[in-house]
Amino acid sequence: MAHAVSPLAPTSTPDAPAIEGVRFATAEAGIKYRNRTDVLIVALDEGTEVAGVFTRSKCPSAPVEWCRQNLSQGRARALLVNSGNANAFTGRKGRETVRISADHVARVFGIDPATVFLASTGVIGEPLDPGKFGAVLDEAAGRLAATPWIEPAKAIMTTDTFPKVATRTVDLGGVPVTINGIAKGAGMIAPDMATMLSFVFTDAPIAAPVLQALLSAGVETSFNAITVDSDTSTSDTLILFATQKAAGRGAPRIEAADDPRLQGFRAALHDLLKELAHLVVKDGEGATKFVEIAVTGAASDASARRIGLSIANSPLVKTAIAGEDANWGRIVMAVGKAGEPADRDRLAIWFGDTRVAVEGERDAGYSEAAASAEMKKQDIRIRVDLGLGEGAATVWTCDLTKEYVAINGDYRS
Amino acid sequence: MAHAVSPLAPTSTPDAPAIEGVRFATAEAGIKYRNRTDVLIVALDEGTEVAGVFTRSKCPSAPVEWCRQNLSQGRARALLVNSGNANAFTGRKGRETVRISADHVARVFGIDPATVFLASTGVIGEPLDPGKFGAVLDEAAGRLAATPWIEPAKAIMTTDTFPKVATRTVDLGGVPVTINGIAKGAGMIAPDMATMLSFVFTDAPIAAPVLQALLSAGVETSFNAITVDSDTSTSDTLILFATQKAAGRGAPRIEAADDPRLQGFRAALHDLLKELAHLVVKDGEGATKFVEIAVTGAASDASARRIGLSIANSPLVKTAIAGEDANWGRIVMAVGKAGEPADRDRLAIWFGDTRVAVEGERDAGYSEAAASAEMKKQDIRIRVDLGLGEGAATVWTCDLTKEYVAINGDYRS
Repeated sequence: MAHAVSPLAPTSTPDAPAIEGVRFATAEAGIKYRNRTDVLIVALDEGTEVAGVFTRSKCPSAPVEWCRQNLSQGRARALLVNSGNANAFTGRKGRETVRISADHVARVFGIDPATVFLASTGVIGEPLDPGKFGAVLDEAAGRLAATPWIEPAKAIMTTDTFPKVATRTVDLGGVPVTINGIAKGAGMIAPDMATMLSFVFTDAPIAAPVLQALLSAGVETSFNAITVDSDTSTSDTLILFATQKAAGRGAPRIEAADDPRLQGFRAALHDLLKELAHLVVKDGEGATKFVEIAVTGAASDASARRIGLSIANSPLVKTAIAGEDANWGRIVMAVGKAGEPADRDRLAIWFGDTRVAVEGERDAGYSEAAASAEMKKQDIRIRVDLGLGEGAATVWTCDLTKEYVAINGDYRS
Repeated sequence: MAHAVSPLAPTSTPDAPAIEGVRFATAEAGIKYRNRTDVLIVALDEGTEVAGVFTRSKCPSAPVEWCRQNLSQGRARALLVNSGNANAFTGRKGRETVRISADHVARVFGIDPATVFLASTGVIGEPLDPGKFGAVLDEAAGRLAATPWIEPAKAIMTTDTFPKVATRTVDLGGVPVTINGIAKGAGMIAPDMATMLSFVFTDAPIAAPVLQALLSAGVETSFNAITVDSDTSTSDTLILFATQKAAGRGAPRIEAADDPRLQGFRAALHDLLKELAHLVVKDGEGATKFVEIAVTGAASDASARRIGLSIANSPLVKTAIAGEDANWGRIVMAVGKAGEPADRDRLAIWFGDTRVAVEGERDAGYSEAAASAEMKKQDIRIRVDLGLGEGAATVWTCDLTKEYVAINGDYRS
């Protein structure tokens, strides 16, 4: 099931530094794949605090339920992730696998099972044998390391065509702290793979409730502002771990979300989340174009966002982009179907810097050549102004190609 | 832009009878197409009452706005439809075209312009020259006929691969009355074609408010229960004309929606609407499978419907069906993302009569062979039981194929 690397992949993977209090190992458990790592175990030093956001699916996977339950106490000592099996829609057996796996990790590290976080990505509906972990955990725990970060990013891949790593170093009360993140995208192959996973680690001494506030705000303009195909996984998981270790180097402990010293950290975290989210889009199945959709002049930010996602999820818009067609009529259609306040006669639409429609009709100065040139680019910018209010939002997506259909429909035929 | 006839097309078009008070002609106005009819003019005898439902798009076409405005008085004397240009997002010029066209029809037939109904389907954003109608209307008005109904169905086609006609004859107070309907599907070709149009005619003597009640109820289980690609047109239009002529043959005038004599008519109308809606799905772009999705056991009918549409609109479900893959994990995903009450551990899923999942996990008696055999059929039935309540709904869709992407993305490249 090898796929060519996405044409939108970055040319290199950043060399992220070690984070004090975070060590990891990867292993080949043979859960589904052969000759590649499929298990990631991360050990977190005592004192690590944690925040998370999870899929809104009403049918979440067993590991998602486990993490939600443990998140309330805000402490984390380990993370176990596997690829190849999502442990979703696996009933009682799935819950049992989660419990056995967490117990195993707890035993190996001598920690409380309630501080073990779990994530699984891969096939839905296949029982996940906890014995697969048993066979590799003890050995892996004996060779934990703090780098290189490309290894955890590789172990969690399913049909991703490149590993996704991002890093930032930022000042916190006069002390440099580091934030590293890894992510995997939604890929789907026989019979079912569907999950966005992302894990972010920092040495910053920030209390769990503050981490949660930072993460919940940051996800809105990053992972919740991207869409590949409008389908929501049963397993989407984003967890932020803070080892607090930078306190030993003099960084201040942050216990309030409105602490002014957080300004730089917040910006860096949100920027890193956005970078990871963009990498997920750039590895969208069959994608050949990265598309930014900026909506302005809407009745509210929430309205702008819904209109943006209506455009980003429209198969007709996405196929037009694949065909390099400056098809603004389909943008109008997608604005109209969003169900949000819109006045056709105030609507304006741009491809790149070329305004193609204004005040409810085709722009008299519209240049088909300029719009077509814009569509030939790899990065496409679409802007829609509603002319109603101050609401604004930006979302990102990729195009819809025959390759997407082939990846998701052909493999059994 | 010739496309092969859909593999899901019916083998023949029904030979619908004349309806007293309805005469029509079609013409070649050359609006966009060559060597085919693209204009339909229908003359309706005095006394004809009318009801309609239109796109919920916030950016409706000029003809949709015109029809909405005229509907309130409940009277109709003529219908003018063109294919090749949707007269949508055409600003002031679009409204002007509508007014000029209605005036022209009114002059030719000696009627009030406010009783002229208009619909346009085709390119969005291109001005529609009312002179195109001017050139053919007078001539066409001189050769009105009551049959054959395949001609109006052909004139309103865009990228439809077959004409869509349905007919019913039903008892109304001891007198047989006829209902004929025509429809066109949503097809998209350079640069933009997007419209579902359907027109239904009857000689039944039914008052406009009753017609509206019948139509609004019927659309929920027919046109509003189908989806090809989740994209809503700027121009969707369904109009029901009742000439009242059967009163001359002794049919009772119906003035209340709860009149028990309506029972047969209501059932026949709803059945005809469903048939036309199914024909639209069967001509979905690139479709190779007709898919029925029945949701039962939901918290409410509305909830069942939203879950059904979440499944029917999921690109991952639709590509799996194209690939003949009994991929129930994607059904779980689509149930989960609908945002409606659902309990993973009570969920059951069937392909045809094969139960593949029950109580939150794969059915122990699940036969991959039986499920795969079901997926090879042209008509696919999927059933989901939520196990929560009495809510039920059925929706219909088609698969998502590479041909869909080719039709909608390739034509400019």
